[in-house]
Amino acid sequence: MLRRTAVSLIVGLAFAGPLQAERYYVRSQAEFSRALSGIEAGDTVVLANGEWRDFEMVVGGQGTNAQPITVMGEEAGNVFLTGQSSLRIGGEHIVVRGLVFRDGYSPRGEVIAFRRSDDDLARNSRVTEVVIDGFSKPDRTDTDYWVAMDGRNNRFDHNHLVGKTNQGVTLAVRLDSPDSRDNGHRIDHNYFGPRPVLGSNGGETIRIGTSHYSMHRSGTVVENNVFDRCDGEVEIISSKSNGNVFRENLFLRSRGALTLRHGDDGLVERNVFLGHGKDYTGGIRVINRNQTVRGNYLEGLRGTGFSSALTVMNGVPNSPVNRYVQVDGARVERNTVADSTRVTLAAGADEERSAAPVNSVMRNNFFVLAAGDPLFRVEDDVSGIAMVGNVAAGTGEVPAEIDLRRRNVTMTRGANGLLYPDDPALAQVGAPRDLRPMDLSQVGVAWYPKPEQRELFGASGTVIRVAPGEDALARAADAARDGDVLALSPGEYLVDRTIGLDKTLTIRGLGAGERDTTVIRFTRPSLIELKDGGNLQLKDLTIDGALAPDAVGNSVIRTSSYPLQANLQVELAGVTVRSLSVNRAFNVLTLDKGSLADRVSIRDSAFADISGTIVSADAETDDFGRYNVEYLDITGSSFADVAGPLATVYRGGTDESTFGPAVTIAGNAISNVGTSAGRGGSASILLHGVQTTQIERNAFSASAPVRVVHTVGTPQTALVGNTFAGTPAPVIEELHYTGDSRVEIRDNRADGESLR
Amino acid sequence: MLRRTAVSLIVGLAFAGPLQAERYYVRSQAEFSRALSGIEAGDTVVLANGEWRDFEMVVGGQGTNAQPITVMGEEAGNVFLTGQSSLRIGGEHIVVRGLVFRDGYSPRGEVIAFRRSDDDLARNSRVTEVVIDGFSKPDRTDTDYWVAMDGRNNRFDHNHLVGKTNQGVTLAVRLDSPDSRDNGHRIDHNYFGPRPVLGSNGGETIRIGTSHYSMHRSGTVVENNVFDRCDGEVEIISSKSNGNVFRENLFLRSRGALTLRHGDDGLVERNVFLGHGKDYTGGIRVINRNQTVRGNYLEGLRGTGFSSALTVMNGVPNSPVNRYVQVDGARVERNTVADSTRVTLAAGADEERSAAPVNSVMRNNFFVLAAGDPLFRVEDDVSGIAMVGNVAAGTGEVPAEIDLRRRNVTMTRGANGLLYPDDPALAQVGAPRDLRPMDLSQVGVAWYPKPEQRELFGASGTVIRVAPGEDALARAADAARDGDVLALSPGEYLVDRTIGLDKTLTIRGLGAGERDTTVIRFTRPSLIELKDGGNLQLKDLTIDGALAPDAVGNSVIRTSSYPLQANLQVELAGVTVRSLSVNRAFNVLTLDKGSLADRVSIRDSAFADISGTIVSADAETDDFGRYNVEYLDITGSSFADVAGPLATVYRGGTDESTFGPAVTIAGNAISNVGTSAGRGGSASILLHGVQTTQIERNAFSASAPVRVVHTVGTPQTALVGNTFAGTPAPVIEELHYTGDSRVEIRDNRADGESLR
Repeated sequence: MLRRTAVSLIVGLAFAGPLQAERYYVRSQAEFSRALSGIEAGDTVVLANGEWRDFEMVVGGQGTNAQPITVMGEEAGNVFLTGQSSLRIGGEHIVVRGLVFRDGYSPRGEVIAFRRSDDDLARNSRVTEVVIDGFSKPDRTDTDYWVAMDGRNNRFDHNHLVGKTNQGVTLAVRLDSPDSRDNGHRIDHNYFGPRPVLGSNGGETIRIGTSHYSMHRSGTVVENNVFDRCDGEVEIISSKSNGNVFRENLFLRSRGALTLRHGDDGLVERNVFLGHGKDYTGGIRVINRNQTVRGNYLEGLRGTGFSSALTVMNGVPNSPVNRYVQVDGARVERNTVADSTRVTLAAGADEERSAAPVNSVMRNNFFVLAAGDPLFRVEDDVSGIAMVGNVAAGTGEVPAEIDLRRRNVTMTRGANGLLYPDDPALAQVGAPRDLRPMDLSQVGVAWYPKPEQRELFGASGTVIRVAPGEDALARAADAARDGDVLALSPGEYLVDRTIGLDKTLTIRGLGAGERDTTVIRFTRPSLIELKDGGNLQLKDLTIDGALAPDAVGNSVIRTSSYPLQANLQVELAGVTVRSLSVNRAFNVLTLDKGSLADRVSIRDSAFADISGTIVSADAETDDFGRYNVEYLDITGSSFADVAGPLATVYRGGTDESTFGPAVTIAGNAISNVGTSAGRGGSASILLHGVQTTQIERNAFSASAPVRVVHTVGTPQTALVGNTFAGTPAPVIEELHYTGDSRVEIRDNRADGESLR
Repeated sequence: MLRRTAVSLIVGLAFAGPLQAERYYVRSQAEFSRALSGIEAGDTVVLANGEWRDFEMVVGGQGTNAQPITVMGEEAGNVFLTGQSSLRIGGEHIVVRGLVFRDGYSPRGEVIAFRRSDDDLARNSRVTEVVIDGFSKPDRTDTDYWVAMDGRNNRFDHNHLVGKTNQGVTLAVRLDSPDSRDNGHRIDHNYFGPRPVLGSNGGETIRIGTSHYSMHRSGTVVENNVFDRCDGEVEIISSKSNGNVFRENLFLRSRGALTLRHGDDGLVERNVFLGHGKDYTGGIRVINRNQTVRGNYLEGLRGTGFSSALTVMNGVPNSPVNRYVQVDGARVERNTVADSTRVTLAAGADEERSAAPVNSVMRNNFFVLAAGDPLFRVEDDVSGIAMVGNVAAGTGEVPAEIDLRRRNVTMTRGANGLLYPDDPALAQVGAPRDLRPMDLSQVGVAWYPKPEQRELFGASGTVIRVAPGEDALARAADAARDGDVLALSPGEYLVDRTIGLDKTLTIRGLGAGERDTTVIRFTRPSLIELKDGGNLQLKDLTIDGALAPDAVGNSVIRTSSYPLQANLQVELAGVTVRSLSVNRAFNVLTLDKGSLADRVSIRDSAFADISGTIVSADAETDDFGRYNVEYLDITGSSFADVAGPLATVYRGGTDESTFGPAVTIAGNAISNVGTSAGRGGSASILLHGVQTTQIERNAFSASAPVRVVHTVGTPQTALVGNTFAGTPAPVIEELHYTGDSRVEIRDNRADGESLR
């Protein structure tokens, strides 16, 4: 360092100025542009503290290894790019450091691009200690990348990326130019924080390449990062090129899998996956040739199928680049799988994917089995996978094709927090003892907080008592803060303007059993409109729709017609809803286009005299694989005289990138429901493209049939223990699949007869 | 006046204060509330000049006839209520004057309500010289009234109401409380300015009562108003109660009709209707008992069916209140109908509406006939209408049932601007000579401009020359002002951020025949996003989609996902569009939910290699009668290798309140179009619920069939002079109607054979 500075000074003295390393302190975009126009190797541009609004920053120039060009914030954490801002980097040996993107979004295809234009790609450049926080395009269907890496030998490290809500990969490595291939990029020590469920394709956190360029070598290293709640879609990381390395990353409570989707010669080693029992948490999925998966630790993962803790796929013979290349030469060694639901070999075998893995080996892996559902699932011939030295603890079943030793061992958590067998003879089996899972303090930046996990309703906030009266509820809702609870005293609440809700709010009556004493009436088409950031819990009260205007399409609760960035939650517990019949199509909850509910939950509630639908989640009619609700749970409730269905959920198209929607409807009394014909025909429950459906222990009477349409993916539907009195049998339709039934129908009774 | 002031002063002196007429000058909402809390008869509250933001003004108190309570702006035209503001009036003898509502919308069900609460309705109160300009809820489907008149003996006069874009009647007289019936309200000297096509039910300018209360007397007088371009829906005024009077109003270029929809004893006299040849302009429609229509003047009206210049309906025997009560005792006297398309008697006769008019008379009316389409249409028995002294000039055909004298007379425009026959023997026939059509200066306020009518594209604004280059077009578009023309020099324009357009803009190349020299390429999913206020004309240039990202659902032009208040227009003339095929469903124009295009026009253009739809206008899938385009014209263009349809237009549901959509597709070459199957099946043109369809002189080859679905209303479809080579015959479906075909199919040829 000293030497370099000295050189610079000496040169500066000798040539009187131009080669002197300059430090430009800039306070405006104009000053920034002037500074950049004369920038030279070794120069530094310092952005003044404060807000830089609508700043499309372009950085370029010819730095050197010894004398890079640096652009940095005056103080890390105090320089904000807001509004419509972005960063493009060209040239070489550029360093950008210490910026925060928030309160806005990029007007371009990227927030940060490692290229200024098609013919000016960044080389040997680095972005470090940059925060991108919620800098998502407002419309979730509008695509962009937060980071696009082009060029060669670039590094993206110690950055903090949280809360991408719109479509498009968080970080993409692009290979669409020859000068971006065999790139040697390094992506390390970043904090990839929570990315909510996108509800469509394009929610990967990292993608390296695309199928189109997957025959090229990328040679990108992804190491020492943390992926925390990266729940965007089924692939957390999608490797689509040759020669990428994924090493010593921590995957924490993240749905989906690290997927070697296209391209060969990948290396996945010493990563730690901790699912903590969350739905759909997966591990590593292997496709293509010469993949090495070794020394990884996987615990608490609940994914199955293609998102198993370990998945080795079947391929398509002579596969086109965008399908599934046969697994050949895979080495899966010394991995530990503990407390996980599934390991799947020859996964996805079907008429098209008929090429089983060959020339592969599974060696010295350690599996902890549990009673119940077997850990292993084998879907085709696995004789092409040599099984050597694998060991299993525990008592679960194992298919005959899986060759392993059963050992009865106790397990102890090491100092690194991971489980190891106590038997010293197993020292060379399973994940190495010297794994060091990444700690959150080692990634991202120290000066920007990482988001904690918390309960949504009632965990924080104040309980505010509200007395009955005209406008009382709306005023209280306006004044409440995020997380507050409005505790309504018994009486009547007349609401004459729609309550716009942009925060988390609980509205509750006295308590269970006294819901009839607290009654809300409203005179607008909706009682509550959920805006961005809105989450609603209603408990122990009654909602009466008789005063709503005589208009078609009223809805007690609806989402804004404006697209919502944030996923939302709605919960009704102990609620009575009645008299929604002043005109047709009066719904209880309407999820409009551009909204996604993480969860809608209705329990212990009662609904009667309703001209519309209870939960309408069918606004995504483009058939692009989008949908409006991830989990829909309706339990222990009664429904009488409801013209529309209990629930309409629509997920059209052929996309397979999402886990949801998942629908559970159990233990309800359903009487005279769904008899008005909608576009899908009359139905008491209308589900199209739902992935997981449980319809259990409901008593249907005088209602329209349940209608379930299976589209692509592996939809699972169970109809168990229901009774259907005066109600036609359920109608299940398969749109594409022609194999055996994928529906579990048992213990149902229809008018005294058992069903099917 | 002098006397009243004197009384006030004397009383004030005698009783030392409390009865003194006070004048409160208030500068804040808090000061306003304090002033109102002590308000007494004779007091005046003056709102300071300036902006009053988010002001939900509530006015009440007990004024007297001699001593009203007055709330007024300091200077008319300088006091603005903005943001989320509204006005509620209770009590009696209240006057509100001189306010402007703009730049916002009411958070309630009304901007101005003549009630403070259900039990405090205004009486003997007046709102005058108030402007409501564009104060519409942002989401067009969110309903409200701008003015709701409740109580009794209230007056709404000299107000200016322009630009309501959301659902809901502009001014409603409510009869839902007994104290609001037989109300004697007077609505006079108002300027009801342009109300754009709503594209669904709820676009009336005035509605008096509802079917539910239509057996009650309202007794409301609507006189001396101007209705200028009130195009919201099929009813300009909907009278739904007894004893209302409509007198000496001017209806100017307004689509729809003054409709005596429910209720008896109406009087429609001395009104002037000037359609100026605009589509769908109607006159007066008669239903129910004892309606009098006399002395009206109707000219230049192009409406037909229920929107004829004069319509006398057939009724339903023993009609329920919400259907059609038989016409009984109608008097239609001394009206003039000139240069108009249609007069319909016994209109709407069908199986349900089988009760022809009885005990009625048409006397001394004057009709000017024209050659061509006959003026009169008689749909059932009209023997119940006595015809006495009616006279017709001109040479058009007249059905035998219409008893009138034919007179060959010349016509002269009187000093009042209206046409009269020169024959003195006809002095007592047709509209009276002393009619005085309202002048715009007599209505509304003098201090707020009334909107003029102007051409949208290119009529105003500057021509700005643009040179090729990266970002050049986006920068020029950002910098342009409303109405400007960007004249592109030949060359390539690379656009790497979506151009958000919130103004009227023309983008054009060199000129006809040189469209290939100016090429626009773009790297985002869309080139242009139309935001609120956006209108676009593209001329004489080429758009190439090859650089757009590999994402499903790209669109060259799309509307914002945010609901649009303003209707929009898009015009493509002499444009080549090519290479929209990087992924599926790449459209040319996508109109999203919540948008309505007044007109989409494509002419002399060429489209090739497109994976989506040319014009996608099918986002309103709720089946509430909404739709996305009013007029769609595609003429003189070529389409080759387009996977989706040329056009998809969807208007579902059973609503009959709109004239549109109207689709004209004529003189095009259509080759290999529409063969990818969408939800309606594969189609080269897919129209559902369109009201008027002309498909003429197109050459189809190797394309999917034309699909037209008729829903309710009186859809008219003509397929004339087309050729279909290797293209299945058109598929026409009727959803509800079971009568004779309503499709004109002639002069078409399919593979050498004539079609049908």
